[in-house]
Parts: sequence; C-alpha cells; structure tokens
Amino acid sequence: MTAPSRQAFVPFVSVDNMMQLVLRIGIEQVMIDLAAEIEADFLRWPDFDKTPRVASHSSVGVIELMPTSDGETYGFKYVNGHPENMKQGRQTVTAFGLLADVATGYPLLLSEMTILTALRTAATSAMAAKWLAPEGSTTMALIGNGAQAEFQALAFKAICGLTEVRLYDIDPAATAKCVKNLAGRGLTVTPCRTAEEAILGAQIITTVTADKQYATILTDNMVGNGVHINGVGGDCPGKTELHRDILLRSSIFVEYPPQTRIEGEIQQLAPDHPVTELWQVMAGQAAGRTSAGQVTLFDSVGFAIEDFSALRYVHRKLPESGLCTLLDMIADPDDPRDLFGMILRAAR
Amino acid sequence: MTAPSRQAFVPFVSVDNMMQLVLRIGIEQVMIDLAAEIEADFLRWPDFDKTPRVASHSSVGVIELMPTSDGETYGFKYVNGHPENMKQGRQTVTAFGLLADVATGYPLLLSEMTILTALRTAATSAMAAKWLAPEGSTTMALIGNGAQAEFQALAFKAICGLTEVRLYDIDPAATAKCVKNLAGRGLTVTPCRTAEEAILGAQIITTVTADKQYATILTDNMVGNGVHINGVGGDCPGKTELHRDILLRSSIFVEYPPQTRIEGEIQQLAPDHPVTELWQVMAGQAAGRTSAGQVTLFDSVGFAIEDFSALRYVHRKLPESGLCTLLDMIADPDDPRDLFGMILRAAR
Repeated sequence: MTAPSRQAFVPFVSVDNMMQLVLRIGIEQVMIDLAAEIEADFLRWPDFDKTPRVASHSSVGVIELMPTSDGETYGFKYVNGHPENMKQGRQTVTAFGLLADVATGYPLLLSEMTILTALRTAATSAMAAKWLAPEGSTTMALIGNGAQAEFQALAFKAICGLTEVRLYDIDPAATAKCVKNLAGRGLTVTPCRTAEEAILGAQIITTVTADKQYATILTDNMVGNGVHINGVGGDCPGKTELHRDILLRSSIFVEYPPQTRIEGEIQQLAPDHPVTELWQVMAGQAAGRTSAGQVTLFDSVGFAIEDFSALRYVHRKLPESGLCTLLDMIADPDDPRDLFGMILRAAR
Repeated sequence: MTAPSRQAFVPFVSVDNMMQLVLRIGIEQVMIDLAAEIEADFLRWPDFDKTPRVASHSSVGVIELMPTSDGETYGFKYVNGHPENMKQGRQTVTAFGLLADVATGYPLLLSEMTILTALRTAATSAMAAKWLAPEGSTTMALIGNGAQAEFQALAFKAICGLTEVRLYDIDPAATAKCVKNLAGRGLTVTPCRTAEEAILGAQIITTVTADKQYATILTDNMVGNGVHINGVGGDCPGKTELHRDILLRSSIFVEYPPQTRIEGEIQQLAPDHPVTELWQVMAGQAAGRTSAGQVTLFDSVGFAIEDFSALRYVHRKLPESGLCTLLDMIADPDDPRDLFGMILRAAR
C-alpha cells in the first residue's frame, strides 16, 4: 500500500477537539476573538464573493450550503435546521465546514461547526448590538432558552458588558437548564414566567426560538421605545418570530439583503422595504442608532462570511493547539496525471 | 471527557479506503455498477431537486458545490478544477462529498471523491454512448491522456464493448503513461502522433483535456459523419474543446440544460439552441440516434445526480466492505438543547 503524500492530508477538527479548544481559550475569550475576526471581515465586505445560501427545503427542515471567498481563501459551511429533531434527541442545527486554498482548490481545514456556529452566531449578535443597542445597556431579555441561549448571554456579557439576563421559554425545563449552565459566570440570571416579564427593564431583547413556522414571539405592544431587538430565530422562509408591526416601526439592520429578504423577519415586508447593511454602519458608510427612542432590529439570519471568519480563526489556532487529526481525503498521486496508476499501486 | 454518542459519528471513506474498495470489486465491475446506479436515477430525473452547481471562479481555477436531493437523501460534492495544479504536482480535479438524511439533516457518509468522480464521469460517458453511439462501435479515439483517460477507456470496454482505444495527447509522456496502465486489460491500445491519426477508424471520439480556455481540440473537418463525440473536458465558462461548426451539425445531448448552457460546449451557441436531455432519451421520451450518418454529441459537464448515485453506491457497500472510519463530526449532547453543557462537561 502506498502511503498518502503530505498534500493528501486535511487537518480535521472533531467535536471533541473543538470543545477542548474552546475550554483552553475560554468561552468568553473565544467570543471576543470571533467578534474581532468577524468585524475585520465585515470591514472588507466588498472583497468577498457573496451569494445567498443554497437551500434544500423539505417538509421537516432545511439543508443549506453557505460558500464565500475572499479571493485567497474559500470557505463553505454545511448546516441543517430541523426543529423536530429535538423530540428524537437530535440537535436542531448541526454543521461542519471547510476552508480551501483558492490558488489550488485544495482543502486547508475540515471542522465540526455545530459548536462553532453557536459561538459565531452569538459573537455576531453581540458585535451588532455593540453598534446598535442603547448606550450603557446592561439587561437583556432572552426569549428561547435552547441550544443557542447560553452562548448569546455570554457573548453579550463579554462584548457588550451585559450584567443581567432575563430568561423565558415556553418550556420551563429549558429555562432551568439555562439557569444552571449560567450559574457562577458573573451574570445576574432571572428566570421569568412570561415573555412580558422577561422584557421588563431590558434594553436588549433577543429572540432565539426554533419553530419552523410563522410565530409571534413578540407582539407590537410588548416592545417599548428605545430597545434593541436581536432577532436570531427567524432564519428561513416561513419562519419568523416578530409581529410585522414591530418591523414597521424599527430601523432594520441586516447582514446580506438578498439572503435576509428570503429568510429573515423582513420576508414579511415589501421586497423594497429600506434596510441598512450592518457592515456599512461599521465602516462609517451608514448611520446606526441615531436617537434614544429608536427601536433598532438586527434581523440576523447568519451569513457565510461569519463562518469564514470563524473557520479561519480555528485554522490559525491549529499550530499552537495541535487539536486536530489528519484525514486522507485528497487523492494525490506522485504523477498527478496518474490517478489510475495510484489505484493499481495500492494493490501491492 | 464525555464519549460522543453513536449519532455523532459519520462514516468516512478515505482515499485509501476508496482504492481498496475499487480493487476489491474490480474497476470494470465498479464502472458497470455505477452506470446502473446512475441510469436508475436518470430514469427518475423529475424526483430530484436540481440546481446548476454553485461555482466560485478565480483566475486560476474554480471551486464548486454540487447539491441535489431526492427528498429522502441529500448529497453534495465539493470539487475544484485547477489546470495549473499539475505543474506543481497536484491534481487538476480533487473532490469529496457527503450524503445526509433529509428527515434529520444528519450526515450519513463523508467520502473522498477524487477517485469516485473519475469513476462516475467515465461511467456516465459510457452510459450515454450506450444510447447514442453507432451500433457495434468498437474503436474510440481518446484525446487527452491525463488523469481521466484510463477510466474512460475501461468504462467503454466494460459498458459498450469497446475493443480498441487510440490515444493522443500533446504530451507524449501522458500517452505513454496511459499505454502502460492499460496494458494487459484486454484492449488494443494504439498510441498516435496526432489527433487526426487517433480519429482514424474510430466510431467514438472522446475529448478530455484540461486547459481552462477556449481550445479547439477538434475542428470541423476532423469529424466524419456518423460518429459519436463524448465531450468531457469542456466543463466551465470559458473552457471548451470543440469548434463551433461541429456543434452546428451535431445532435446535442446534455445532462441538465441550465448548467450545461453555462459550462458546456454549447456556451458557444445561442441560449435557445435545441438540445436533448439524456434522461429523456433513456426514459423513451425523446429520440437518441436516429440515423447512421448523424453526428451525436454528449456535451458532458458532470451533474450532481451522478455524484449522488455514486455516493449512494459507496454507502451501500459499507456494511459488507467495512472500508471506512468513524468521524466525530456532529455535536450530539444527551439533551439536544444542552450544547453549552456538553462543552462544560468535556472539561471533566
């Protein structure tokens, strides 16, 4: 058997490797690092090849591919969204991703991304809030206490200086899990019996529920002036969380309009309803929050550049962490034209 | 450290596993099997979600994602095309792919596909020729003797009863490699000094060159009446092999018109130039070859359904072959809402 050449090996970060990496660096530090990576890439937004993700829908969920490239490095993520999975003991969202060298097309990294997606989603939410939430925000309502909840709470603590999180979920067991996981992490954690109660005194409202349907997690009368809404759970056609009236009185900020108009809360609005691209606020090309009474909404659906930034971060950490294995994934015969001969020689 | 659950593991077929699988079954038998799989899927063509592949082009190559789904199983392939790679000792085309369960979005198989793509491309070519080439074809000109050449020759032997292959490449070393690899396999192998010489007496002409540019491997006067052209190498925008005049006197058969019009030889023609979908010929819904003098052209660019068929074949062989390893790729906490807690527990 011929040993594969060095080029044939692709570093692979398993779920266990990812957990060890996060624990070693510290979850909050990872959030801060990821927000910085994502911010740096948002500031060079025009450098990227951008396309709405390629979705394959079924009655129970969606499978998506999210590619992008900055001309030097190519990245894509495979991600599913299956709200019914939870009942069978499975994750609603699982993911993995890849980085490749644009010059050769050869993969540079294969990585689990279920955990990494949770981290980058929360880091992106907090990064957006840094630009949009009221000055001095300290309290966040967190509606939906599933797999993404703790990541959101800690990202806002690490990046925005959050001190209190008010939890609500239709399932009290989800809230209890969240309370337990957040204990001793320097946040005041208040479980609430209703969404209305969770919102009391909150400058930031995060909605992160998982139903694949038009839901109304927030109605118009629940949202006071001046708050920032971080809408995370509305992220595919037919799946929204906010009443349309809230959208009509909000200043809406999005990642990539062609994708958000299909998938985000704004699928409820006319296709030309004005929205602002978040990267333009960060680059000083558009206004963010302009008054204290303004309701700002980050209609977040998740965009490929955020995954690209996160994968590059993991890739950069590999030499020091060593937290990967090598996969024999790329056929690489000594003579590149002799793929057939390589198979024959494998018989020896 | 918490051991990953059974659901967290994805079977992975490495390059070495794939070579062993092919050697165990036999290369020609694999071709026959793959052609049967692909034919079965072409016959239920309307069942599939179809989209032109998602391409990211650069000055030196292309990286593509090719997804499809039959409603039960989802598949996609990552594939690059970098003609300059060869000079640096790399493969022009490398690939890997994945199958997933549409009901849950969970991956079922991750596999190398550099070798599998070579096999399925050749099997598809021969399958098409079975329907389109002149009755009793025995001789094929094979122009371009790179990584795909031997696979083409053996697929046509196994599936179409080819007895002689006439080889030509601008690089005689490529031809010599091909002659050596095909020795003793029951084919008469004739190296030729020009493309014209290779075509002499051939009922089938296969072009499979790799330049990323408009090339003219075949000019109109080289192509006699009644031949079948298997055009494999023209497969992305700006990359063609056949002179336009040949196209104008050929009956053209394609995989998926929306993709072939972008990538195939027919990018040289008007966007409404008539073409026939190969699956319709196989399903009895359209005519294939209707006269002995007709020039038929299979303008092959490679379509996602062929990869889907090939991945399913490999997946089906796994229980008996055992030729895979298990990857810890999907985060799967005991409580699916407790992704965060899973990370915390990994510290123990």
